[in-house]
Amino acid sequence: MNVPVHTLARTVGAVVVGDGNVMVTGSSDLYHAQPGDLVFVEHPGDLDRALASAATAIVAGWFARGCHTTKTLVLCEQPRLSFARIAAAAAASVPPPGPRRDPSASVDPTAVVDSTATVCQGVIIEAGARIGARCRIGPRVIIERDVRLGDDCDLGPAVVVHAGTRLGHRVCVHAGSVLGSRGFGYVQDPATGRHERFPQAGMLVIEEDVEIGANVTVDRGTFGATRIGRGTKIDNLVQIAHNVQIGEHVIIAAQTGIAGSAVIEDHVVLAGQVGIADHVRIGAGVQVAAQSGVLRRRVPGRPGTVLMGTPARPMRTTLQQWAALGRLAKR
Amino acid sequence: MNVPVHTLARTVGAVVVGDGNVMVTGSSDLYHAQPGDLVFVEHPGDLDRALASAATAIVAGWFARGCHTTKTLVLCEQPRLSFARIAAAAAASVPPPGPRRDPSASVDPTAVVDSTATVCQGVIIEAGARIGARCRIGPRVIIERDVRLGDDCDLGPAVVVHAGTRLGHRVCVHAGSVLGSRGFGYVQDPATGRHERFPQAGMLVIEEDVEIGANVTVDRGTFGATRIGRGTKIDNLVQIAHNVQIGEHVIIAAQTGIAGSAVIEDHVVLAGQVGIADHVRIGAGVQVAAQSGVLRRRVPGRPGTVLMGTPARPMRTTLQQWAALGRLAKR
Amino acid sequence: MNVPVHTLARTVGAVVVGDGNVMVTGSSDLYHAQPGDLVFVEHPGDLDRALASAATAIVAGWFARGCHTTKTLVLCEQPRLSFARIAAAAAASVPPPGPRRDPSASVDPTAVVDSTATVCQGVIIEAGARIGARCRIGPRVIIERDVRLGDDCDLGPAVVVHAGTRLGHRVCVHAGSVLGSRGFGYVQDPATGRHERFPQAGMLVIEEDVEIGANVTVDRGTFGATRIGRGTKIDNLVQIAHNVQIGEHVIIAAQTGIAGSAVIEDHVVLAGQVGIADHVRIGAGVQVAAQSGVLRRRVPGRPGTVLMGTPARPMRTTLQQWAALGRLAKR
Repeated sequence: MNVPVHTLARTVGAVVVGDGNVMVTGSSDLYHAQPGDLVFVEHPGDLDRALASAATAIVAGWFARGCHTTKTLVLCEQPRLSFARIAAAAAASVPPPGPRRDPSASVDPTAVVDSTATVCQGVIIEAGARIGARCRIGPRVIIERDVRLGDDCDLGPAVVVHAGTRLGHRVCVHAGSVLGSRGFGYVQDPATGRHERFPQAGMLVIEEDVEIGANVTVDRGTFGATRIGRGTKIDNLVQIAHNVQIGEHVIIAAQTGIAGSAVIEDHVVLAGQVGIADHVRIGAGVQVAAQSGVLRRRVPGRPGTVLMGTPARPMRTTLQQWAALGRLAKR
Repeated sequence: MNVPVHTLARTVGAVVVGDGNVMVTGSSDLYHAQPGDLVFVEHPGDLDRALASAATAIVAGWFARGCHTTKTLVLCEQPRLSFARIAAAAAASVPPPGPRRDPSASVDPTAVVDSTATVCQGVIIEAGARIGARCRIGPRVIIERDVRLGDDCDLGPAVVVHAGTRLGHRVCVHAGSVLGSRGFGYVQDPATGRHERFPQAGMLVIEEDVEIGANVTVDRGTFGATRIGRGTKIDNLVQIAHNVQIGEHVIIAAQTGIAGSAVIEDHVVLAGQVGIADHVRIGAGVQVAAQSGVLRRRVPGRPGTVLMGTPARPMRTTLQQWAALGRLAKR
Repeated sequence: MNVPVHTLARTVGAVVVGDGNVMVTGSSDLYHAQPGDLVFVEHPGDLDRALASAATAIVAGWFARGCHTTKTLVLCEQPRLSFARIAAAAAASVPPPGPRRDPSASVDPTAVVDSTATVCQGVIIEAGARIGARCRIGPRVIIERDVRLGDDCDLGPAVVVHAGTRLGHRVCVHAGSVLGSRGFGYVQDPATGRHERFPQAGMLVIEEDVEIGANVTVDRGTFGATRIGRGTKIDNLVQIAHNVQIGEHVIIAAQTGIAGSAVIEDHVVLAGQVGIADHVRIGAGVQVAAQSGVLRRRVPGRPGTVLMGTPARPMRTTLQQWAALGRLAKR
């Protein structure tokens, strides 16, 4: 980017103190800032480091109002959020290369690909699929029949989207993830001990503004749909089983696994390597600490609830148990 | 499908009560049933819901014998199993598209691909590989040299099968899985602290009727073979290390990891996120609860044994320990 | 291979006892040895089994000096290490097929690929990438713009290397791994509850002699670099988050996850399914047992330190706690 500070500040409604005509050429954190960079300071204690850095402009809270510096200050309520928005706006201001359909892509004649979508090398799009405006389908992506993508979706390299999966607008999926795979469902024949396949005829629905990391697996429903609500963000190597229902604006960190038919309500936060047992319901706003295992059928939604441990209990209870065990062992 | 109920009932030896000429057009669960659907009821308590649903026919246990309904009943010993078999038979009755070798596939002239196999777009089959009858090799699959596939195998998109791996009949592998990768074996030079590669010259053998989920990794043996016994079912994101020996009809849920040279005997069930330490032997029929870690060298096979916790102990012991810790912390 | 024993012994400075002209045609362990094979014995207790095997030659410690046998002995200080080196030398002595650029590979005209590199089928190399001497770029690998590979790198099938990633010499990456993906970073708007993207503009640096398993994910830095130090070995399905700093000669077993900005110092060993919380620092030489979760901000480096459990504590402490809990539950 190469934009004057006052233009950036205007995009987030911030107040400029100092020279608003100074040009910003990039963004950084306090440890890597170069001349031309915009940085941000959330806590007053970090202000000195920002002032001492090579950065040209600083997004900061109102606490920085009175400070003496030759750098340009961009003052606002939420410096981290404003900084993120400025960086996003700057990235969006770079016009992407025009839409392009690589000649090596294989698109079934019955698929409908918007003329503004980009289809990269080696992509396969099967019969009946529909790809919305301005989508970017990365190299070697495989989109099976009857998949639907909204507008502005971004699929990374080698993503696989199985038949019938539906993605809303602005869904972003990173490399190697598999969406809509067959669920893990069998019936054992008691006479022979053999496990026979139970049908997995459902689908997968991913709502708008969802982001999914790399090498993630999401199974389709058994009969109904596996569903991921809008605005939810999922990290790498996460497993989501058949019929799981995930609400809106949920955060799921890496390597977490959610077993069949579990329900994760809005604004839940699951840290890394968490396990959610099948048919469990995690109420809205609950947070689950890393490596915890939730076995209880129903965790009521209450903001501020943090579960921890296996079996997961309220954090305070788990910490008390860990402390009690420590004292016991020392006796 | 579009089949009269009596035809479906005959495939599983069930008894029809009511109009056996009614046509079934699909299968469903009790929550998503549409007119024309076949559903199943395992427990008497669910019968009312089935009768109230829009389903046309109901597979049920003998308990449903006397009920009054206009729907057609299909009565049998094992309603879930019979339902699964009917659905599988219906799916199999749809003739698959004839065998096809996509012109974009790259098949080495020394590979032997049965003329009834389907080879999709962008497949690579290297020298000396052999592909059995009616196999389906999904798009972008890579089959390295000297791999052997039995008949009726189904490899999903972008599966990688490394050199020398052998798959029996009817093996099904889902998208993105890697079979026969190099094991994690090194020797540290005590003088320099460097880790040097130990040879991993063995192979991977997968027996018939095995199903493997998406983005799974299975390493080949160091010298002998890593082996997965027939009928075993493996979920997504599972890791199986070099020289692991897995018996027949084993169930392994998502994100479980099995370390080198462990032995998992027949009919074991490993729930999600379980860890099995190296060289451990889990006896036949043992079940291991989710997130457990098995460190003990030898767990004797005894039906009904359920291990739980880290370190894994009999479930009753672990539950007693959790309860005792809860009481201790409250004192 | 087909090499006389004395030639093999010379490569590792070992002493031959018996007929040094005997030809070795392969290597094996004690359970799978065939005539012509070289095996190794580390512990005196295994010597009888080696002598009874079909192997032609035995790498052993000095303890085997006086034994009576018709097999040829190769005596040295470190039998396992010497055996690994002999096997590696034998493998390296097979001349690889000459460099080759498959016509189906797509290499941007501005990419610089050394003429001695092998580029397999369906590879994509984007603008500005640089590939060193004797690299092997496996089938369907995707190398984005401005990636740099040192000499003698080996990328397995379907690996994805995102823009700007740098790999040193002799880096080996197995199938399906994703290097340099976007980190999991968002800022929540307190007014709407929506998670907005925080920029992830950093890079990923992988130093020389690193080996990375299959289906691994490594995120690039937020602003600075995620870094993996030389000689480090990483197993399958591992997750490494943004800004993680991994030292030299570290061992990371399968399914372990390392959260953002954690620092893993030299010679650390992380067993399988370990979780390291964000911003934690694990000091040099520390070992962490399988499934442990390290939450403590700083673990001082001290050789012989083994952490265990969640929360991870010194192994002795954890074992005492487990024992105390067992006694408590029995009361």
